[in-house]
Amino acid sequence: MRIITISREFGSGGRELGKRLAEELGIAYYDKEIISAIAEKSDLDEAYVEKAVESGVLSRYPLTFSSTFAHVPIMLNYDTKLIQSQRKVILELASRGDCVIVGRNADTILADMKPLRIFVYADMEARVARCVKKAKKDEEKITPAEIEKMIKQIDKTRRRNFDFASDYEWGDKRGYDLCVNTTHAEIKKLVPNIASYAKAWFEGKDE
Amino acid sequence: MRIITISREFGSGGRELGKRLAEELGIAYYDKEIISAIAEKSDLDEAYVEKAVESGVLSRYPLTFSSTFAHVPIMLNYDTKLIQSQRKVILELASRGDCVIVGRNADTILADMKPLRIFVYADMEARVARCVKKAKKDEEKITPAEIEKMIKQIDKTRRRNFDFASDYEWGDKRGYDLCVNTTHAEIKKLVPNIASYAKAWFEGKDE
Repeated sequence: MRIITISREFGSGGRELGKRLAEELGIAYYDKEIISAIAEKSDLDEAYVEKAVESGVLSRYPLTFSSTFAHVPIMLNYDTKLIQSQRKVILELASRGDCVIVGRNADTILADMKPLRIFVYADMEARVARCVKKAKKDEEKITPAEIEKMIKQIDKTRRRNFDFASDYEWGDKRGYDLCVNTTHAEIKKLVPNIASYAKAWFEGKDE
Repeated sequence: MRIITISREFGSGGRELGKRLAEELGIAYYDKEIISAIAEKSDLDEAYVEKAVESGVLSRYPLTFSSTFAHVPIMLNYDTKLIQSQRKVILELASRGDCVIVGRNADTILADMKPLRIFVYADMEARVARCVKKAKKDEEKITPAEIEKMIKQIDKTRRRNFDFASDYEWGDKRGYDLCVNTTHAEIKKLVPNIASYAKAWFEGKDE
C-alpha cells in the first residue's frame, strides 16, 4: 500500500499540493471526506464536526467558513471522542488502497504503514499573500494583519494536536521524508515532480 | 543562473546526492574543487586547507583522511582567512555558470543569487549504517560507536560554522527550499526526480 500523508502550515498551499498530487498519481484523496466519514460514524453532523476539528480557532475568522460558530466552546468537550473516531476512519481509509491524506495527524496514525510523509511550509509573508488572494476571491473582508494572527493561531492548534500524538514536534523535519518550501514555488509546476519522487521513494523502500 | 546548494548532515549521503544531481543536470559540481581553488589563491597547499576546513574534527578519525593531523591546533588560526577565501571562490565559481555546490555554507554566501537550497538528512541509525559500509569498503577500522561520536562532532562543527554566517540555524527547514530525508531512500533512484523538481522550481521562480 502506498500512502502519502501531507502535513502543512496554514496558508502554505499544502491542501492544493495534496489534491493535485492525488490527481497526478490517480489515487484517492482524503481531507474533508474523512470528516464526513467521522460524522457518520459518530452521529455528529458534518458541519458540527468540521467546526470542532480546528478547535474553534476559525470561529473568529470567516475565511473558510461562513456559518456562525457560537457553539465552539461546547464542542471542545468532544475532542477525545473526535480524535478516536478520526483515528479509526483514517486507518480504515488507508487500508482501502493508495491515497493522499491531508492533515489530521495521519502520518502518526499510519506510522506502521510507513507512509511517505510530506511537510509543506512557507515564509509567513508568502502565506499571508496566499490567504489575501483567497479572501479576495471569496469576497471575505479580512486584513493581512488579521490573517497573520489567524495563521499563527491555527498553526498553534495544529502543533498542539500533533504533539499530543507524536514523538516528534510538529514541523520537525525528522518526522518527515520530504519537506517542501512553497515560498518561491509554483505548486502546480512542482506536483508532477513530487509525484515521480514519491514513486521512486516507494520503489527504493520496497526493495 | 541556476545554482543548487546542498547542505547535509554527515553520513546522510548529501555528497553523493549532490554529485549525482550535477551529473543528471549536466552542470558543474563543486566540493573539494573549491578547496583546491582556495588553496591556490591563499598560497596554502591543498592538503593543509582540507584539514583545516573541518576544524580538525576528523583528525582523530581516519575514515576519510589517512594522513596525520598533528598540526590541527595551529591551523585553526587560519579560520578567518580560510572563510574569506572560501567566500570569494564560491562567488567566483557560481558566477561562472549553473552548478551544484555541496557544503561550505554556499547557500548563505550565494543568497543574492537565489539558489535552490537543498538540505539532506537522515536518522542517526541510517547515517551510522552508511558510514560503517563506507569504512568497510575503505578497510578502515572503526566501530559503530566511534562513528556515531564522529558524526555528532562533525555536525557540531558544521552547525557552528554555519550559525556564524546565517540568519537561520543550521538544518532549520526555513533556510531551505527542499529537505530530503534519505533514511528510507535510495539516493540513486531519487536523483532524477530531484533534478526535475529543480528544473520546475527554477521555472516557477523565474516567471
